[in-house]
Amino acid sequence: MNYKIRSLREKMRLLDINGMIVTNPANIHYIVGTNAEGVFLITNRENILLTDARYIEQVNNSITIGDEIIVYDSANVSEQDYLGFFAECTRIGIEENNITYAQYQNYVRKFRLKEAVETNYLIENMRMIKDDIEISKIRKASEITDNCFRYLLEYIKEGVTEKQIALEIEKYFIENGADGVAFDTIVASGENSSKPHAMPTDRIIQKGDCITIDFGAKFEGYCTDMTRTIFVGKVSDEIRELYNFILGCQIRATEKMKDNAEGKLIAKSLESEFNARNYSMIHALGHGVGLDVHEFPIISQRSCFTLKENMVVTNEPGIYIPGKLGIRIEDTILVNKMIPEVLTKSDKKLIVI
Amino acid sequence: MNYKIRSLREKMRLLDINGMIVTNPANIHYIVGTNAEGVFLITNRENILLTDARYIEQVNNSITIGDEIIVYDSANVSEQDYLGFFAECTRIGIEENNITYAQYQNYVRKFRLKEAVETNYLIENMRMIKDDIEISKIRKASEITDNCFRYLLEYIKEGVTEKQIALEIEKYFIENGADGVAFDTIVASGENSSKPHAMPTDRIIQKGDCITIDFGAKFEGYCTDMTRTIFVGKVSDEIRELYNFILGCQIRATEKMKDNAEGKLIAKSLESEFNARNYSMIHALGHGVGLDVHEFPIISQRSCFTLKENMVVTNEPGIYIPGKLGIRIEDTILVNKMIPEVLTKSDKKLIVI
Repeated sequence: MNYKIRSLREKMRLLDINGMIVTNPANIHYIVGTNAEGVFLITNRENILLTDARYIEQVNNSITIGDEIIVYDSANVSEQDYLGFFAECTRIGIEENNITYAQYQNYVRKFRLKEAVETNYLIENMRMIKDDIEISKIRKASEITDNCFRYLLEYIKEGVTEKQIALEIEKYFIENGADGVAFDTIVASGENSSKPHAMPTDRIIQKGDCITIDFGAKFEGYCTDMTRTIFVGKVSDEIRELYNFILGCQIRATEKMKDNAEGKLIAKSLESEFNARNYSMIHALGHGVGLDVHEFPIISQRSCFTLKENMVVTNEPGIYIPGKLGIRIEDTILVNKMIPEVLTKSDKKLIVI
Repeated sequence: MNYKIRSLREKMRLLDINGMIVTNPANIHYIVGTNAEGVFLITNRENILLTDARYIEQVNNSITIGDEIIVYDSANVSEQDYLGFFAECTRIGIEENNITYAQYQNYVRKFRLKEAVETNYLIENMRMIKDDIEISKIRKASEITDNCFRYLLEYIKEGVTEKQIALEIEKYFIENGADGVAFDTIVASGENSSKPHAMPTDRIIQKGDCITIDFGAKFEGYCTDMTRTIFVGKVSDEIRELYNFILGCQIRATEKMKDNAEGKLIAKSLESEFNARNYSMIHALGHGVGLDVHEFPIISQRSCFTLKENMVVTNEPGIYIPGKLGIRIEDTILVNKMIPEVLTKSDKKLIVI
């Protein structure tokens, strides 16, 4: 059996559930190895993907006989079949953070569920630790992103708009083997950069701007996430000093991201450095990256996650001065036993174009 | 009070509910007039938007005092406040098709809901009928899409790939005043065109191809949706005849799309024409378009919706010959008392580039 399903079944046993209905699309992708709309059922005897004609060929190309996954076109599944799937299961896990209330009620009726049990991000938690195939895909996504950044340093000049830069990034990704962007690109210049979640506007890049670019490619379903803040034409000593402070923070945090480190402590230590300079940390320090660009673990002063070998996480401290500017530096990092590997390898020293 | 809220409150009265929790982002956009993450509460006394700092300025720019909407930063809302909102409400509507099972349980506890009542797409049903402002936005989105199609007829030539065409469309939209694409563009050439939902690939356009392009701009939150199938270099008489058959079907269906027409009858009549030639209708004939690119009504042989004045719907018959080709022609149409207005005005006669 597929090792992910085997491991999931062990965890189900600990929760005393003998069936599970997987509805989160990223969780289905994780188990099946490819993107397929539908629902995945783990019954006491079988692993079943209910999908539709659009995905069957693609799923059959992705799974092997060793996976022990049965694929059905849900158009051919009868009411009687639905009643049969969990006939011998008593407690059936659901993904309460994904399933809608209406779906929940529909499934209780359709599958005649005896007892639906909340599973509290069971598969999302498994997804935190990446295997070699997953890491190689994130590595490739990061490589494309790095190459794109090198290209951007040539492309960006006074006169282009934030939106044009964002489009150019998407174009680069698609023309260089990525699936596309892993998330909506942020290109925030000048005063716009003080908003951490700014969307690209028609603002024209001009001399003296700082530009925060938060972007990442997706490769075979896997994301990466990188931010660089660059400067146009000139940069004041004051800003240069601030940049180097954040860069120092980011590098020190990276060094701490190893097996068994507490995310909360890393974030708190950075927060102290920020506070000592009268800045506050207004967003989390980082998050897991994988099939979703934001997934577990969360690395912040308020979250309790222990970093583990083969987690892939971001490290993205930022300082924002409302109406003036923002500086954020972010990498995607592979957590190892000892020395973390920075997967996004673009230059981080202050760049003036 | 905002006329949408007034009308919603009347419908709530018919369902005997005196409070409602709106969670569907498009429904919140519909009520508030702009995009804001959060939750909208209708209590027996107030209309409340709980959002966060990122959206407050934008919402305050969009609403007026006459809307009678109170905006809170949810960071400043206490547990006690939550308990107070529905203190005087007994039956509170929820959006069971949007709210997750976990959110549902959280809200029942947090708001101390006495009785949560399913509202069965209450606001989605209201959204079917567009007002003048909504129509003008869809009109503008359609105009940009038409201009883009004219541009594409110059841009597309042998040697470009499906993905390049899709990117060019996005670029055109963004550079010409749209928010962006209303949905993932479909560019399906040659044999790929036989899959109604094909995603753009690296396939290179070549002489003899047909290309199905299904695309639409979004303007100030509102979508449009158009499909044209064009031909490269040459087209056989057989295909030309098939194209003209579909075009005839599409035009006849459009003429029927007026106030009080039954969507099901229009679809069935087209299905008879298809069946008489041994083709089947493998997808719905059309759907509503607005803040979502797919919304109510659904126009198909199996759906019961009566068309009404000021609905905006698509009309998109298509024939697909597996492994060979597909032809689909789609417009976005404004339903009127008598003569429907085709909002997407691009040429539909067979085009060979």
